[in-house]
Parts: sequence; C-alpha cells; structure tokens
Amino acid sequence: MGEGTWKTGITKVEPNKLLLRGYRIDELMGRITFAQGVFLAIKGELPNEREAKMIDAMLVSSIDHGVTPPSCLAARTIASAGAPLNAALAGGVLSISRHHGGAIEDSMKMIQETVRRKKEMHKRPEDMATLILKEYKERNKRLPGFGHRIHTKDPRTIKLFQIATELGIAGEYVEMAKAIEDAIEQASGKRLPINVDGAIATLLCEMKFPSELANAFFIIARIPGLVAHVYEEQTRMKSMRFINPKDHEYDGIPERKL
Amino acid sequence: MGEGTWKTGITKVEPNKLLLRGYRIDELMGRITFAQGVFLAIKGELPNEREAKMIDAMLVSSIDHGVTPPSCLAARTIASAGAPLNAALAGGVLSISRHHGGAIEDSMKMIQETVRRKKEMHKRPEDMATLILKEYKERNKRLPGFGHRIHTKDPRTIKLFQIATELGIAGEYVEMAKAIEDAIEQASGKRLPINVDGAIATLLCEMKFPSELANAFFIIARIPGLVAHVYEEQTRMKSMRFINPKDHEYDGIPERKL
Amino acid sequence: MGEGTWKTGITKVEPNKLLLRGYRIDELMGRITFAQGVFLAIKGELPNEREAKMIDAMLVSSIDHGVTPPSCLAARTIASAGAPLNAALAGGVLSISRHHGGAIEDSMKMIQETVRRKKEMHKRPEDMATLILKEYKERNKRLPGFGHRIHTKDPRTIKLFQIATELGIAGEYVEMAKAIEDAIEQASGKRLPINVDGAIATLLCEMKFPSELANAFFIIARIPGLVAHVYEEQTRMKSMRFINPKDHEYDGIPERKL
Amino acid sequence: MGEGTWKTGITKVEPNKLLLRGYRIDELMGRITFAQGVFLAIKGELPNEREAKMIDAMLVSSIDHGVTPPSCLAARTIASAGAPLNAALAGGVLSISRHHGGAIEDSMKMIQETVRRKKEMHKRPEDMATLILKEYKERNKRLPGFGHRIHTKDPRTIKLFQIATELGIAGEYVEMAKAIEDAIEQASGKRLPINVDGAIATLLCEMKFPSELANAFFIIARIPGLVAHVYEEQTRMKSMRFINPKDHEYDGIPERKL
Repeated sequence: MGEGTWKTGITKVEPNKLLLRGYRIDELMGRITFAQGVFLAIKGELPNEREAKMIDAMLVSSIDHGVTPPSCLAARTIASAGAPLNAALAGGVLSISRHHGGAIEDSMKMIQETVRRKKEMHKRPEDMATLILKEYKERNKRLPGFGHRIHTKDPRTIKLFQIATELGIAGEYVEMAKAIEDAIEQASGKRLPINVDGAIATLLCEMKFPSELANAFFIIARIPGLVAHVYEEQTRMKSMRFINPKDHEYDGIPERKL
Repeated sequence: MGEGTWKTGITKVEPNKLLLRGYRIDELMGRITFAQGVFLAIKGELPNEREAKMIDAMLVSSIDHGVTPPSCLAARTIASAGAPLNAALAGGVLSISRHHGGAIEDSMKMIQETVRRKKEMHKRPEDMATLILKEYKERNKRLPGFGHRIHTKDPRTIKLFQIATELGIAGEYVEMAKAIEDAIEQASGKRLPINVDGAIATLLCEMKFPSELANAFFIIARIPGLVAHVYEEQTRMKSMRFINPKDHEYDGIPERKL
Repeated sequence: MGEGTWKTGITKVEPNKLLLRGYRIDELMGRITFAQGVFLAIKGELPNEREAKMIDAMLVSSIDHGVTPPSCLAARTIASAGAPLNAALAGGVLSISRHHGGAIEDSMKMIQETVRRKKEMHKRPEDMATLILKEYKERNKRLPGFGHRIHTKDPRTIKLFQIATELGIAGEYVEMAKAIEDAIEQASGKRLPINVDGAIATLLCEMKFPSELANAFFIIARIPGLVAHVYEEQTRMKSMRFINPKDHEYDGIPERKL
Repeated sequence: MGEGTWKTGITKVEPNKLLLRGYRIDELMGRITFAQGVFLAIKGELPNEREAKMIDAMLVSSIDHGVTPPSCLAARTIASAGAPLNAALAGGVLSISRHHGGAIEDSMKMIQETVRRKKEMHKRPEDMATLILKEYKERNKRLPGFGHRIHTKDPRTIKLFQIATELGIAGEYVEMAKAIEDAIEQASGKRLPINVDGAIATLLCEMKFPSELANAFFIIARIPGLVAHVYEEQTRMKSMRFINPKDHEYDGIPERKL
C-alpha cells in the first residue's frame, strides 16, 4: 500500500467473497429483506426485528405520490427528450431537494434539537413545544414537517405512527412531535397536522439516523416510483410532448383490496 | 379536463387517499416489504410469495461492491467537491451505464431471444446454446453475463440460483443460461461462469420483467450502497482529495456471522 | 511514473504555467475569443479567421429558444424544488438528448454519409439527393434536420447559410443539404426547409467536426440560456409551482435594434 | 391566457422570429461574439466593448485545468462506464460545487461585502482590508480567493488584472482585493496571492454580476474543457479503466507560440 492508501469501512471485496459491513453478502441473501439491507448499508448494523418492520413501512409509504412532484416531472421531461432511463432518474434525484423531500431533514434537525433542549432545560414536552412554536413565530418561520398542500389527514402519517406505537418504536421524538401539533392547535385554533415528512423525520430520529441521511432515505424510497413514471413515459407517451403538471387523469387499476 | 389531458396508471392521489396500482398505500404499509413495493410499482402487480423472496435476495445481492465501480467513484468524486448528497447520487446513477450494470440488460435480451428461438426452432437447450455461442464467435462478440474481472466463482451467483431453485422460480431461462455456460466450457475447455449480472438477468426473465427495466433494477439495488459511500466520503475524508481507485484498504467490521 | 500512467493531450499543468493544446493560456487570454477557445479545446487547433466567425454565429444562434424545450423545463423544475444552480443545469444537460438537439448528430451522420457516397458513386448532388430521399422513404424514416414544429422559414438557418456563404465556408455539405431540400420539394410539392439543427450540422461538417461532438456543441451554446432561465426561476417565481409549458407570456424587453 | 399564465423575460419565440432580451437572434448572429451573447443572456444587456473583451479573457482563462479537477474526473469516470457525452458532462457540472469553483461565489460575496462596509464606514481600502483579515482570523476562517495548491504566481491572475487595468475595468473591487493581498503579507510576512477564482470574482463584481451567478460563469467556461476530456476518454482510453488522478502524463502538442 502506498502513501495515498485510503480507508473504507463499507464493503470488503475479495475474489469470490464479499462482506457488507462484515456480513457475507451471500449469507445475507435469502435471510434479510432489502429494507434490512438498506438499514445495514447505511447504519452499519442490522436493524432489530421491530426496526426492520418500521423501515419497511416507511419506505413503502414514500414509493410514489403521483405525477405532480418535481422529481416525477423532471424525470418525465428528460425521458420525453429521448434520454435513457438512468439520465431521467438522475434528473429526478436532483429534484429531491430543499423544497421536495427536504422537509424531512429540516424536521429531523428541529425535533432533535427540541428534544435535546427539553432534556437540558428539564422541561415537560408540552412546555418545550410551546417554547419552540413561540421561537419560530418570532422569527416568522414555519415549523418544518407540519401541514400538507393536499392532505389534511394524511393516511400515511396515521399509519406510520400506528405502526410505530405497536412496535414500541414511538418514544420521546414522537411524543415531542405530537406535543408540537397540539401546541399549534392551541395557539392558532387550527389543526396543522404532522405531515408524512414530519412523521418520517420523527421515526428516523427514534431509530438514531443522522439528519444528513434524511434525503437519502427519501431518494431510496422514491426511485422505484420514478422508474414506473419514466417507463410509462417511454412506453405510452409521445416524445417531446408538453407535460402540463395539472391536466392529467388517473386511468390505472381501480381501487382494490389487498 | 382540457384537450391536453394526459393519462397515468401508477398512483391515484386524492385528498387523504393514495392508491398505488389500485392499493391504498396505508393498507400496503406494514403488510408488504419494500421489495414487494418495488415490484408492485414497476410491474403493476404484487409479487407472489416466492417472487417476493426472490426479489429481496436479488436486491440484497447488488447493494454494494466496494469502492472500485465507476458509480461509487463518480459519487465520491462529486461529494469530495462539496456537492450535496443527491448530486453525488445522481452522478453515481449516471455511471450505471453500458459497461457498468449494462450487462444485465444485454444479457436479458440475449437470453430472451435465445429461449424464443429455441422454442421456435424446436431445439434442445444444449443445441440452441451451441448455436448461439457459434453465432457470437462468428461476429467476434462476447456473450453478455459470463465471466467476471474479480470473481471466478461468484458467491452471489451461486446463492441466487440456489434460492431460485428452492423457490421453484428457476425455469427455462435458467436452464438456457446453464446450457450456455456448459457450451462455453465444451468449446473452449475453460469454465467462464455466469456472473452476477447474468444471474440477475436470467431471474428477471423468469419473473417476466421487460429488459428495458434491467438498469432500473440495478440502480434501485445500488443506491443504498452509494449512500453509504457518499456519507463516508463526507464524514471521514478530506475534501478535494485525489481518489486513487486502487490504493485503498478495508478497515471496517471484520467478518462476522449473521 | 508507474505502470498505471495514462496519457492526456489536452492541457499541460505545471506550477505557474498552463498550456491548452500547446498554447499558454495567459497568452491566449486577450488574443482569442471564447468561441475560438471552444474550437481550440475541442478540435486541438485554433480556427482560422473565417471559422472563428462562423463558430461565433453558430453558438449565438443556439443560446436560447424560450421556455418550451425540455432542457429549459427540466432545469426550471429542478430549480423550483430548491436545488442549486449546477443541479438544475445538469438536469437541463441531461435533456439535450435524442429528440432535443439530437437531430444535429443524426443530421451530421446523414450528410457526411451522403456526401461520401456521392463521391464514391460519382453522382451529381441532385441525383444523390433524390437517391437518399428515396431510401429514407422506403425505410419510412424522416430525414433528420428538415422541418420545424414552429418555424417554417427559420431566420437562424437563413442567417447561418448567408454567413457561411460570405465567409466561403459553404462547400459540398451545404450544397448537398440544399439539394436534399430541393429533392423533398420536388417529390412532395411541399417545402420542408432545412431547420437550424440541419444547418448547424451541415456547417459542423464543413469545419470537419466529428459527428460525436454535435451534442457537445449544442450543450455549450445552450448552457447560458439555461442559466438565464434557472436564475429567473430562482429569483422571480414561487418555489414548487406547477410549470405549465404552454401557458406562459413574454414580458421582457420589447423588440429593439442592435 | 389562463389563470396559471406565467411570465418570462428572456426569449420571445414566434413563428420565424426569435428575440433574445429584445434583440432578433438572426441580427445578433455575425454581429456579436458568443461571449457577448453569454453576457446578454445572463445580464439582460449587451456588454460594452471593454466588458466584451474582459468577459472573453475571463472565459478563456477557465476553459481547462487538466485532468485533476473533480469535474474532469467525474466526467471521465462516467464516460468510462459507457455513458453518453451529455451524462458525463452533467456529472462534471455536478462537481462544480462548494470546493471546486465555489470559491468564486464566496469570494464575490466577501469582496462585495467588504467594499460595501468600506464605503459605509468611510474607511481607506488598506484599513478595511486589515479589519476584514482580522475578522476572518478571529473566526478561524480562510479568506476565499487567495492562495492556490499548485500555482504561486498564477499567470491567469496576472493576465486578468493586466487586461482589466488596460480596459479601465479595474475599480474599487480590484483595489480592495489587492489591499487584502497586501494586508495578508503584512500580517503573515508571506505572500498568499489572489488566485484565479479571486481574480474572476473581483472582475465579476466590477461588471455588476450577482454573486449567485459566479458558479454559472465557471460552468460555462469549463464545459468545453470537459467536452475535450470526455471525448479523449471515449476515443483513446479503455472503458472501465481505473483512473488514478495523479499518475498521468501530458503527451499533447509541445509548447508553441500563438
């Protein structure tokens, strides 16, 4: 090894042997789900059984949200110009940015900081929630992770918290998020519920993910949805069409039960 | 709806209700794994139980292959320049191209075509394999999906076929791939085994994925690995370093049992 | 130098000295225009004075074409999601693909091949044009570089050929392009004029650019336009807006004389 | 026009008529250089003659800097994987980020702010330079735009300032940049000269570009260099090679005079 040798702790590659975070990949195959593999690759350790279920539910919740998110529109626009699938996906990934998916990271930082200060100041969650809300109002800023432009009672949020509670994953971060939701209602008389970004943020906090990986989590979840859109664009649409984000209609399989 | 109304069959978005391929997302959450969700988003139908296991094993097999693939090097180079995570991932995705991951698509096309012709010509697999090998030789082309620059007996390939056999997924495409492997050995006296690209290609054929989605499948699998590399680059390395692809060393967790 | 030493012939970098294609960059500065630098970087030699003027006119012709091209829409969509300028530009560049800008490359290949065959077969341009038109019709393919969805008499095309003629750059490729235009009119009774892609293609042929660099040429020309659009999006528009490609209005500076 | 009508002030597109910032593109062609077109597209007005010369020199100065910048390495890595030219360029553009090119924006902000405070506080440049240097030291931050990892007397910087002086473009921003250079020398006894990023930043300030467009300027300048590298990679190198950033050798045209 020369002086420029650099170190990596993710995957060990030897002829006929591959270790991901210390585990032989061929031993992992058939024993863990892909979501567990995602957790292992990123965090360095396998999730426990409860975390594994949680991460699966979280990833499933964000697979797709129809044609209007910028990631979908950018991917379709690039595909429509005749670019290959990976170029369209790259354009979609570039759109998962500050205003699209970015609320997960902002929300994680806010909740982590709020919980940290709550402990430091020996405050009750409801008092800390009132304080943080007041601070954001004074700075004329919106709390990231609350309210949605379409959904008032987002079924994904409800389900995420329900599963988190059943699995015993909901802890001090979920408690704080709900305290903030209540504080908003008390202050404004209006319910501005935790949205799916806020819910995912809260649960990533519970599972000790660093906030810097929030965006990664959303990208991993959304790529399959983008693949479906790009493929639909490539196989069903005229190339170089004008894509009006609003004037579309769902003509897929009608509602069915699992 | 105006004259420009366009149709989409992937996700129906209504206030407080989201249908992915007809299923309520909140109903899918907690009931299916992420890998099943990937299958549903892309193919439009849920996998059966055997397919679900197969797809999980395939995605796990391709999560990462260390620091030398171009996708990893491009992503790390971009991250090293101070770009955000999603930009680095986009660069990685752009590298998953003809020579990196691309063999899956080429291999799918070759195997699909070979099986189609075998049926049409009423040939036995071994005879069709001999024919296709001869044709490739005459055109001085390599059969895509055979041989690997590092692995001679890739543990991932072995495991994929083992799982496929156990689950009853291995059918005429696996049969043909193995016949080609044998034909190569007979013709050259040397074993040039099916590599992991060829194995994934064969199993995607068995599960009736279109070859156009081969690249998508690999991108979905590899993104979590790229996330791990970008995060390691951002948190552990000096920015703007010269990344020599070869002069690295693994210093992660030593081999451990599952 | 180790065994992995690789060679590059573009720029020599030494402390306090930089050679681009053999010329000191500080000596080039102030002596050549940027367009001459583009020519030098890509072709390895400086253009002569006539080529320098031609390349400037060609690059100016393609700086922008308003908001409807996919490169502009992709870049604006990504910017609207809060991504930084370079990410939005990358998305735009990814859209400059088969159906958007790609006609320049296709057109170059067609014209180069047609001129080559004309010489080989000792044909007159008009006869070769009739032949190539016939061949495309038989294969039910459109000749790349003819016709435009908006412009019937594209002022850019007219000006490009006028400048090329004045500079003495128009030669056998322009002659052939015009012969094809005439042959189309004779065959169909309708004028389907050379479009700006076809004109640029023809002139790149005259200046001996390889067809593989056609796309590069268009990307270099269009980036400044994309920068203007992204900056307008970032500074003037609401983030996360729905960008309807058609429903826009120009409110910039009214027509003015140079 | 519907309620969603949006406004754009860059290019007016009508059948057979194109206005860029109010000027007919066909009228601009042959009359302005590409660099003037870049200025017009981005700033909305044509440069005067002196600005036109300055912008040409600035763009030429940054066309290429050999194989080691991350933009070049990312572009080559992506090309090496078999991706098309535009994908490789997009990867290069994504690398032009905080630590690579980013110093131009940081430097612009610092110099603009320093000149603004100088006026507000009625200070002499040398006193303001001493103050800003002291403030950066106290915050333990480096002044952006000073010092270079390879060049101690960057010929590009020297030439840029020489041209700016000849053209009468050098004003209060250049004055301030030089005052800071002197202040550093006085404080540390060591000359840490303005680098090419700092020089470009200073001159963009003189020409009243917003700092948000610094990155755009560098991207526009560098794309032709990246094109040359990608094309060299595609036509001269083995695909999927390991690109060691350091172990390369220049074998291009030897030094020659203009």
